Amino acid sequence: MTGYAAPIEDMRFALYEIAGLDEIAGLPGYEEATPDLVEAVLTEAGRLAAEVLAPINRVGDQEGCSLENGAVRLPSGADEAYRTFVEGGWTGLPFDPEYGGQGLPWTLAFAVHEIWQAANLSFSLCPLLTQGAAELLQSHGSEAQKALYLPKMIAGEWSGTMNLTEPQAGSNLGALKTRAEPHGEAYRVTGQKIYITYGEHGLTENIVHLVLARTPGAPPGTRGISLFLVPKVQVRPDGSLGPRNDLRCVSLEHKLGINGSPTAVMAYGDNGGAAGEMIGEENHGLACMFTMMNNTRIAVGIQGVGIAERAYQQALAFAHDREQGGRIVEHPDVRRMLATMKAQTAAARALCYASAAALDRSKREPDQARRAEAQDRVELLTPVAKAWATEIGVEVASAGIQVHGGMGYIEETGAAQHFRDARIAPIYEGTNGIQAMHLVSRKLLGDEGRSVGAFLAELRADLGRAGNALDGLDGRIAPELDRLEQTTAWLVEAAGRDPRLPGAGASPYLRLFGTVTGGALLARGAACAARHAADGNGLAAETATERLKLARYYAANLLPQAQAHATAVADGAESLLEIETATL
Amino acid sequence: MTGYAAPIEDMRFALYEIAGLDEIAGLPGYEEATPDLVEAVLTEAGRLAAEVLAPINRVGDQEGCSLENGAVRLPSGADEAYRTFVEGGWTGLPFDPEYGGQGLPWTLAFAVHEIWQAANLSFSLCPLLTQGAAELLQSHGSEAQKALYLPKMIAGEWSGTMNLTEPQAGSNLGALKTRAEPHGEAYRVTGQKIYITYGEHGLTENIVHLVLARTPGAPPGTRGISLFLVPKVQVRPDGSLGPRNDLRCVSLEHKLGINGSPTAVMAYGDNGGAAGEMIGEENHGLACMFTMMNNTRIAVGIQGVGIAERAYQQALAFAHDREQGGRIVEHPDVRRMLATMKAQTAAARALCYASAAALDRSKREPDQARRAEAQDRVELLTPVAKAWATEIGVEVASAGIQVHGGMGYIEETGAAQHFRDARIAPIYEGTNGIQAMHLVSRKLLGDEGRSVGAFLAELRADLGRAGNALDGLDGRIAPELDRLEQTTAWLVEAAGRDPRLPGAGASPYLRLFGTVTGGALLARGAACAARHAADGNGLAAETATERLKLARYYAANLLPQAQAHATAVADGAESLLEIETATL
Repeated sequence: MTGYAAPIEDMRFALYEIAGLDEIAGLPGYEEATPDLVEAVLTEAGRLAAEVLAPINRVGDQEGCSLENGAVRLPSGADEAYRTFVEGGWTGLPFDPEYGGQGLPWTLAFAVHEIWQAANLSFSLCPLLTQGAAELLQSHGSEAQKALYLPKMIAGEWSGTMNLTEPQAGSNLGALKTRAEPHGEAYRVTGQKIYITYGEHGLTENIVHLVLARTPGAPPGTRGISLFLVPKVQVRPDGSLGPRNDLRCVSLEHKLGINGSPTAVMAYGDNGGAAGEMIGEENHGLACMFTMMNNTRIAVGIQGVGIAERAYQQALAFAHDREQGGRIVEHPDVRRMLATMKAQTAAARALCYASAAALDRSKREPDQARRAEAQDRVELLTPVAKAWATEIGVEVASAGIQVHGGMGYIEETGAAQHFRDARIAPIYEGTNGIQAMHLVSRKLLGDEGRSVGAFLAELRADLGRAGNALDGLDGRIAPELDRLEQTTAWLVEAAGRDPRLPGAGASPYLRLFGTVTGGALLARGAACAARHAADGNGLAAETATERLKLARYYAANLLPQAQAHATAVADGAESLLEIETATL
Repeated sequence: MTGYAAPIEDMRFALYEIAGLDEIAGLPGYEEATPDLVEAVLTEAGRLAAEVLAPINRVGDQEGCSLENGAVRLPSGADEAYRTFVEGGWTGLPFDPEYGGQGLPWTLAFAVHEIWQAANLSFSLCPLLTQGAAELLQSHGSEAQKALYLPKMIAGEWSGTMNLTEPQAGSNLGALKTRAEPHGEAYRVTGQKIYITYGEHGLTENIVHLVLARTPGAPPGTRGISLFLVPKVQVRPDGSLGPRNDLRCVSLEHKLGINGSPTAVMAYGDNGGAAGEMIGEENHGLACMFTMMNNTRIAVGIQGVGIAERAYQQALAFAHDREQGGRIVEHPDVRRMLATMKAQTAAARALCYASAAALDRSKREPDQARRAEAQDRVELLTPVAKAWATEIGVEVASAGIQVHGGMGYIEETGAAQHFRDARIAPIYEGTNGIQAMHLVSRKLLGDEGRSVGAFLAELRADLGRAGNALDGLDGRIAPELDRLEQTTAWLVEAAGRDPRLPGAGASPYLRLFGTVTGGALLARGAACAARHAADGNGLAAETATERLKLARYYAANLLPQAQAHATAVADGAESLLEIETATL
């Protein structure tokens, strides 16, 4: 088992040369995000991750969480780590200074999340969920709600949760049954929710549960769902804590991984109803949730990047140490595994950071048309960032085991934990299949491929601008951009012919999209690096050469999968329709 | 969690229409393997697997094994299951009747192993290791050794183990240090071995350890390794059990999966040396091991098939049950996952059974030239069967989790166990990277692609013979066979140019090989099915149509990866050489 060192140079590269953080920092309100501050934030986060969070990652996995008399016992070290984390002010990074936040770009906040998640995925889920809940409240809460809850959540004194799933309602939220009955100015919430991450714990003095439920007489399906704020401990108007609310943790799940984090089954209203207040308008609960979904989905994509980076670092260290007729890092097949892990991680990071940058622009671009364009972009990239990067997380963690040989299968080594932990990310926050359906139904069929076209135009412009800097790599990327465009057009056309085809082709389409645009973004970074090195603009020529080699490795070894995915979209969807359910 | 039903129809199809079991049954000594007997064997094995082995699979994972005062405690039910297994005569299937075996084809024995491994991988490792050890003894033991040990092992009264790995010697066996000093007519063995599957347990009254060690003055490296038989309890010349030998289980590993099987650290000779006898000639221990490696490696490939089948059955049952706005088996993306799982499993089964058939021909073909051809074939296919099928095992088990959504991540569901169990198979019996190196170095560079050419010629002849039966599918397969041929030629040529290139391209070459030949074998099966259906030869026309649809699905969705793998061999290897160790 090895520790974790935040890959600051790689992150800085992806932030500036690929995601364009310098432009993001020029948006109104983000002036403080100077390169010096960014460097300081990443460095300090890396230090905290290495010294406090990474060391308790394995013990968290071993000890897990337990439920005792309604209270959740977290693994050793979690309490102290959380206190240190909160004292460092890390919970408020991207939030409005009016409520105690630091007003820094989401792009930077996501990069910092990569560090937490790589160091200790189980731990990082608590602040991540709190951040998601706080953003939702910031967007949809009343002034009173924001004043009462936001400062505490942004300061990390209270945590937050998302309560969507019920036993009979997973991906199909329209089936949910939790009820909210009016009671004075508030509501009484009754029902059971499952898969509630950090649904109960003692890290904070209160937990703010955001709960989807139905009011009496609400329309059936997804149009009858409202959103409620249901605190664990009731909050008086003056902000002081009142009595315990009528909700409890019934049990904790026994999971494949992320064992250091409690995944709770929550019961609301066993004794007459949990006191809750509505957030936003009645029956608009799902719409409220969706506004924060881009945020949390990008964050889950970043989990894929973080776990991949962690698995890569561990495998690389092992390969340098392990002697089997020479250090195994010199064996061609081990080098291939390591180079593939590195290239996949870099491409996934590029795509996730680019998604985060689009999110910032969608919030801060002064020009309304540009904000709308950025909103299109973030909606386009979010499902890809979530699904593609989390698949890469699993693949890279699996390769990490393989580099270790037999030792990789032994739990003490630690490689297996990354593999188990990584496997959740393709599932939660909307399964990867759901992401693919969203990509195809909303952004392809919804706008007939316009937002794809706009992104492709930008990536082609990158190649044009690169000139000779890419040393022929552009000749590999350009035809794949064409292929993505043609496959997009095929899907739009096919939908008119047989409405089942887009669904049948959605998952390979998403993989095609990630594979091609990930490669194009690596090429963008390599070209920028070459330009900056030539300008004498801070980057060393060797760095630029190294980035180009990695992009070339990606283009030769991973980009060729694009053609396979494209065939699987078109021919594959047709061949799928041939197969009858009875013969599966 | 669901049970397991042996997929007898799919297995029979792969045995007869793809692997040609009817021809195998025509080889001398295999006359008893009539279709009726094969059917009875598969059906009875399926019953035992469903009723006895599958029900203790999960409890084995939960309870695991423990070491108490030198004795290994197996999980609940293992003892009774083993007794039932032995009483059924299942341990002797492919062995010489002279020693109590049933003399049935290895092809059938491997199919039966698929059933055991799918039902309970942890349990099945005990008879599998015993079978490997018995085969080795049958090939290399002296008459006295065979008479003394084989009947007990074939009857399942004694089990067997393989002792290769030491802490400093994993893939690099040349580094092993265990010593064997002459002592009278026998030897005294001293050293430590790790990763010894069923190294200690109480299922049998004795355990026959086969141990690689060095004699005094042996040459360094792999040329100085001899093989020793070291029983847990010493055996007197009359076959009765003598005193306990000087060996013990030091500890058990805590693993990612296969927790129902003990993986032991074994110490030999703590008190002066464990009594052992040499098998075969001095310094020829590795050669002895290699003669049985094709056998055990095909068996591990079959583990990939078995776990994939199990994961598929569980996911399919879940998809039929689970309602999320309609049964999820009707959702296009879920259907795509299930169809892909089914097609991958079928292709891996086809390749593994074809490898097993080649093994039988290499042992039983009356004509020496045909035996040699078959030996070439089994050496060619074995590394592909092992590596490609075990990667498919992991992929399909991962897809099985995904089909379950959030429930897939909860251990109670059982899908996660398959994922954890599957992950060992790409590692043990020679990592998949080692398999790729063997494929490239022995069968490409060793014979300049002749054995690949012979296999390709056979697969092309299949397509020619199929005529119109494949309904255009042949037009998809043929160019991929060409691609495999061209890539083979490239590797042979590249080796002369830069000796590092074959190693750098080996893993994608193996994947290319598996992807293309797996698809071609599915097409072979579909064509045979069409022919037999047309002849009125037992197979229904619907069965033939269904097989063709599945082969077509494979060709549209999985076969296109061949092009990506081929590019990764050639361009990929060159791009890998560009990357320096320091920049990994």
